[in-house]
Amino acid sequence: MHEIRGNSCGVPIAMGARGLATAGRVTGLDKWLMRKFLQSIGSPPLRVVLWDGSEILPPGASAPVGMRLRNRSTLMRLVTRPFLNFGDDYSAGRIEIEGGLVAFLETIYGAMAGQRQSRSEPDKDAHRRNQPRRNNLKDARLNIHHHYDIGNAFYRLWLDREMLYTCAYFAEPNASLEEAQLAKMDLVCRKLRLQAGQQVVEAGCGWGGLARHMARHYGVKVRAFNISTEQIAYARQRAKAEGLAGQLEYIEDDYRNIAGKYDAFVSIGMLEHVGPDHYRELGQVIDRSLTANGLGLIHTIGQNLAEPMGPWLLKRIFPGSYPPTLREMMAIFEPFGFSVLDVENLRLHYAKTLEHWLERFENNREQVSMMFDAAFIRAWRLYLSGSLANFRLGNLQLFQVVFARPNNNRVPWTRAHLTLPTGKC
Amino acid sequence: MHEIRGNSCGVPIAMGARGLATAGRVTGLDKWLMRKFLQSIGSPPLRVVLWDGSEILPPGASAPVGMRLRNRSTLMRLVTRPFLNFGDDYSAGRIEIEGGLVAFLETIYGAMAGQRQSRSEPDKDAHRRNQPRRNNLKDARLNIHHHYDIGNAFYRLWLDREMLYTCAYFAEPNASLEEAQLAKMDLVCRKLRLQAGQQVVEAGCGWGGLARHMARHYGVKVRAFNISTEQIAYARQRAKAEGLAGQLEYIEDDYRNIAGKYDAFVSIGMLEHVGPDHYRELGQVIDRSLTANGLGLIHTIGQNLAEPMGPWLLKRIFPGSYPPTLREMMAIFEPFGFSVLDVENLRLHYAKTLEHWLERFENNREQVSMMFDAAFIRAWRLYLSGSLANFRLGNLQLFQVVFARPNNNRVPWTRAHLTLPTGKC
Repeated sequence: MHEIRGNSCGVPIAMGARGLATAGRVTGLDKWLMRKFLQSIGSPPLRVVLWDGSEILPPGASAPVGMRLRNRSTLMRLVTRPFLNFGDDYSAGRIEIEGGLVAFLETIYGAMAGQRQSRSEPDKDAHRRNQPRRNNLKDARLNIHHHYDIGNAFYRLWLDREMLYTCAYFAEPNASLEEAQLAKMDLVCRKLRLQAGQQVVEAGCGWGGLARHMARHYGVKVRAFNISTEQIAYARQRAKAEGLAGQLEYIEDDYRNIAGKYDAFVSIGMLEHVGPDHYRELGQVIDRSLTANGLGLIHTIGQNLAEPMGPWLLKRIFPGSYPPTLREMMAIFEPFGFSVLDVENLRLHYAKTLEHWLERFENNREQVSMMFDAAFIRAWRLYLSGSLANFRLGNLQLFQVVFARPNNNRVPWTRAHLTLPTGKC
Repeated sequence: MHEIRGNSCGVPIAMGARGLATAGRVTGLDKWLMRKFLQSIGSPPLRVVLWDGSEILPPGASAPVGMRLRNRSTLMRLVTRPFLNFGDDYSAGRIEIEGGLVAFLETIYGAMAGQRQSRSEPDKDAHRRNQPRRNNLKDARLNIHHHYDIGNAFYRLWLDREMLYTCAYFAEPNASLEEAQLAKMDLVCRKLRLQAGQQVVEAGCGWGGLARHMARHYGVKVRAFNISTEQIAYARQRAKAEGLAGQLEYIEDDYRNIAGKYDAFVSIGMLEHVGPDHYRELGQVIDRSLTANGLGLIHTIGQNLAEPMGPWLLKRIFPGSYPPTLREMMAIFEPFGFSVLDVENLRLHYAKTLEHWLERFENNREQVSMMFDAAFIRAWRLYLSGSLANFRLGNLQLFQVVFARPNNNRVPWTRAHLTLPTGKC
């Protein structure tokens, strides 16, 4: 169950540095297979270097990025199950990237996006494809455990001081990550129009940063739910250390077990782990929890098209995850008649957030390597780089959705309340 | 085809003032039927006065609003086909309302909304129910003609100076209608980030007010489409009179025939007449029209739940109309991979807009009565009052949706550009 815990992420380790001599001569068939494969993914302009040093170049184009394959077995694995094996073989060191991993992935994903046709019907099963596990009460715990319980010390190396592992809000593109995460929390609190004394429930609270911020700066009481054991332990410790324990209750339980009535419902970066099969349940939880004039906010990674996540990401990084389309999100709101008041798409802010995380991750590689092996580091680098590429390309979105009961006429009149006090005036 | 043109809106006229004598005695069965009917619509707390003066009162409650029925035939018509006949019989004067029409309708609609259960599946055919006509190229013209070609002079009596027949934006609730319509146009232009010299296409331009505003204040060139003959004639005349003809081209044609490439696509209050069966076509039009870094905005009345419009509204006022849910709107964007950047719900601004229109309409009743008969005036009052009630109750929404191509990275970084220069700083 602890697939990542310890010093491995479950990736088959590179089988030693066997040289070119044992890799076999590159044949015409090898090259033909590689060319066919590149065509099948939209002919990305990249250079492929095979194990004997021979090259496959895009026709007529220069190729600023490329990949180097260790041996024929790597080639065969790539062309037969590319979306699982590329990640594993990159992690294991059997594939090396030249010209920068993010640029390489942007080239690949860009070519694949260019290939897509408009579709007559949305893919209703996108969220079920490639899933090793679903998101019922039991499996949800395993899914969350897999990613979030691999050691708080690791996340501390590359997240901001408040340990927010979700998209930040850069009021200016050159704001620091610390500033941008504070601004994100303020933006969320303003969208929810928090008032001192209110009761707030948070579904999926991570390391508790937003709950601390809401309690400290907005004077509200927060009950924050999370099924990650390590995150809850960390959150409780900090609340106590910072004298906020009286306002904050961190509850190690599933969002489906939320009870009570609240002036605000907030969920930042949990919906990705809920799964569309459970959106109606989430809507029910909100419907029974929100007061008549309460406001809700859901912040989630999303997509424009209902497409399954890649099998490698689902197997190695985020089992059970799925970023919904706005259409799919409406399954939370529509059955209960909730009014959607405001949607903001912060896609480029997530690209910027990931640039910061990736830079910090690389700067702390030495410390990470004392916790995890090389394959883990490479897998994690691939996951962060791939996410960055997908946000830059518009394959992923970041939706912040504010909602209320339909007959709540105390909803904000305009967006004037969203202007941060630090804004230019 | 000209069901409203002239001095009638097609409503059977009240058949003279036949007195109580000919209406028949009220029986126990009459009262039982009325009580059953009230129960079936959620037992709204209202008083019913029957033709002999006898009353039906809600149990134990005072009733600030009530209705008075002319005769047994009115009662029978009401209980058998209430959603069509209430409107016709109110228009014909066979039903009189006490305590204010808007308050009466809020009471009724509120009771009906309270009755609704959450649903397991959205109603996929909501937009097809009660429709006298669809929205293909030919019928769309008839539908638009029915409502918009009843005389510009009539609309001039109660719309603002720019003749905007869509939700205004009240920066402050006590702004005037003229200010609020100018603010709405500015908000739209800012959301689209219009720059001088850009090419804009407008789908469904009404009397051309937004196109004039964009040309005059933002220096863009606009091609504006509309299938209402009278609106186009008015728009052309004003553009010429105001020296804007060089920047504005008003085209009497369907949105499906839009050609060319544009930096901005804008549509204010047309989607209600498009119909979900044609959203994909609309998406195709946008997909072929928008430049790589173009922005689009659709402003439309919407709903939280997919429900059919009332048959009276569809027959007498807006044939072919349907206000979509956000989920339904995604059929425009999702097949083409458009990114939704921003959704703003201006529901309460539409309630405020309707208050202004209704007040102006009533203040100009005398002039209206020189153009149309009493039944028309009563029908129009019912339509405006019912819309106001539905926006106040949250049965109707107003969605402004901004979108772009998925790989457009020049989209606005934040919402800072939306702050109007007249804002408090």
